[in-house]
Amino acid sequence: MLQPPPAEPGMREDEVDTPALILDLDAFEHNLDTMAGFLAGTNVKLRAHAKTHKSPVIAKLQMARGAIGQCCQKVGEAEVLAWGGIPDVMVTNQVVGARKLARLAALARITNISVCVDDPLQIAAIEQAAEDAGVRIPVMVEIDVGGKRCGVEAGPPAVALAEIIAASKHLSFLGIQAYHGSAQHIRDPEQRANAIGGAIDASRRTVEQLRQRGLDCPVVGGAGSGSFRHELASGIYTELQAGSYAFMDADYARNSEPPPFRHALFVLATVMSASSPHVSVVDAGHKAMPTDSGYPLIEGRPYVSYVGASDEHGKLTVEDPALRPRLGEKLRLIPGHCDPTVDRYDWYVGVRKGRVECLWPVAARGAMA
Amino acid sequence: MLQPPPAEPGMREDEVDTPALILDLDAFEHNLDTMAGFLAGTNVKLRAHAKTHKSPVIAKLQMARGAIGQCCQKVGEAEVLAWGGIPDVMVTNQVVGARKLARLAALARITNISVCVDDPLQIAAIEQAAEDAGVRIPVMVEIDVGGKRCGVEAGPPAVALAEIIAASKHLSFLGIQAYHGSAQHIRDPEQRANAIGGAIDASRRTVEQLRQRGLDCPVVGGAGSGSFRHELASGIYTELQAGSYAFMDADYARNSEPPPFRHALFVLATVMSASSPHVSVVDAGHKAMPTDSGYPLIEGRPYVSYVGASDEHGKLTVEDPALRPRLGEKLRLIPGHCDPTVDRYDWYVGVRKGRVECLWPVAARGAMA
Repeated sequence: MLQPPPAEPGMREDEVDTPALILDLDAFEHNLDTMAGFLAGTNVKLRAHAKTHKSPVIAKLQMARGAIGQCCQKVGEAEVLAWGGIPDVMVTNQVVGARKLARLAALARITNISVCVDDPLQIAAIEQAAEDAGVRIPVMVEIDVGGKRCGVEAGPPAVALAEIIAASKHLSFLGIQAYHGSAQHIRDPEQRANAIGGAIDASRRTVEQLRQRGLDCPVVGGAGSGSFRHELASGIYTELQAGSYAFMDADYARNSEPPPFRHALFVLATVMSASSPHVSVVDAGHKAMPTDSGYPLIEGRPYVSYVGASDEHGKLTVEDPALRPRLGEKLRLIPGHCDPTVDRYDWYVGVRKGRVECLWPVAARGAMA
Repeated sequence: MLQPPPAEPGMREDEVDTPALILDLDAFEHNLDTMAGFLAGTNVKLRAHAKTHKSPVIAKLQMARGAIGQCCQKVGEAEVLAWGGIPDVMVTNQVVGARKLARLAALARITNISVCVDDPLQIAAIEQAAEDAGVRIPVMVEIDVGGKRCGVEAGPPAVALAEIIAASKHLSFLGIQAYHGSAQHIRDPEQRANAIGGAIDASRRTVEQLRQRGLDCPVVGGAGSGSFRHELASGIYTELQAGSYAFMDADYARNSEPPPFRHALFVLATVMSASSPHVSVVDAGHKAMPTDSGYPLIEGRPYVSYVGASDEHGKLTVEDPALRPRLGEKLRLIPGHCDPTVDRYDWYVGVRKGRVECLWPVAARGAMA
């Protein structure tokens, strides 16, 4: 159930078995440095999102460049981060169920763990789990800033939850979670700025109303790789939760004025069939690379189109048969969406200048619960 | 990287941690028995497709009901099946690359392994790998019967490849692979029958031309859960390669005159947020359940619609707020597409009459290479 690594350090990239998850280390480090540069000299901190990378190794490289901790979406991810030595982990999501909450509370002994809520019943359940475990858990109130998914309305409903948290014996009120997920991929920069403007207004209003009720709000968290420059400039957000910036996928590249990062993550694939003049078939389909955010691009081959995925096949077409990728050739595919792609693999194959430098486990691969 | 099981035998289903892959054992056994019933008394054999289930346990249950072996798409899957004791495994796909072919050839020592080709270069490479390993490998010629993906044209191009195989010292010609993948989900039964009729004609013509050249064609393989009754009745196919019939997904159920199987595979999910009157959010999104073949249905709740997936969230809507699934409630989701869904999990949770009966590993989970 754990797959063996498809490569070993020192190997040439074209010797790596496929499909494989390739991390171009120069581009990746450029991205980490670029994000650190945006935040340098500001009061805003990076709490990078581990839902993208699922790796304590990458978390540590982000923290070495100033990130104050990590966030994640699942208790299983938080466990892997905590077990891997990450000292500050926020679950930017609701956690429901006694078994999961017991696991969450146990983490409070080995890391600074925090979690989000949008319902009084969740608060009561976390309070119980914290009491049972003999720990104190900081809790964020999630507000809906436009995603229409989780989160209460900004303003009075959020304040009401904060007051319940603050009055709970084993919880502390940490702040508000105000992430606008659906704004990240709005193609037009002005529309995207407007959407985030709404999130900023909602957050500011909620923080003011909390203060009026005597509640300090140490953290306002949110932002993604598509929008973070707006939250950074807002004067109200204190922590940015970008994740994809480290890898930069094809879908973020489709934004107008795309984020200033390089493609660092690839699925290496082999041409396994080329039996008609305009078609090549690679060994990476749905199972190797989810297509929820569109088909991949082919690095360095703008004239090759990935036009269809089945479970184990990807169909490529070219207009000019002379340019058709040959049987056995290996191609770097730029995934449409990094996060679910990473979650398909057990290993990052770190490559620099054409050679495999390292193998890192995707340690929270499949940590969905 | 291997996730702990979300349940233990004896537990009630509503105690299982989520998201979890639930196998309803009564429905599953009904499906296996139903397929065995279709083939009983015919000369056609079932070679069930392990790309769906990725489990030697399930393979053995299929073989106990008459299946002659398994097929799969990747060498990594074939390894897991062979290591799990399955005595006959066909890779219904092209295998390219020296490293992969060495692995394939090694399997010939412990199982009857066979593989498909659609190019003379592949034949030469398999011949070399077989020679290096000191084994003999039976090889199928894949013909394109309408999928326009892999496979040579039926007739003379297929015969030409068969002759090269038959003349190779370490290979034997096993037959033709004639699977029409894209016909499986044609909604209209008559159009589906016509598409498969074309595959049957192409296969018959190729077998006749092989005989004219003095080549026996022991195996004609193909068919899926959407079409197998046509191939079964064809008089030309010798092996059916259905896989999804064991689980029956939501997309197959959308065919008119759908296959006669019961939904046996579910993703169990928990309502983690319910902060607006018409919306509930479950903890199963893209990462828990690929949506390439549409969103899941909710078992027993036709009035609840799964309307949107993000990485870790699934959004459900109801018209009547009184019917909205409650915070903490667990729901069985019927996946749009079984194969990539199974591949997201490390464990099957086998359930009978509301209780967990068994945990089976998804042993070839992630075996993409």
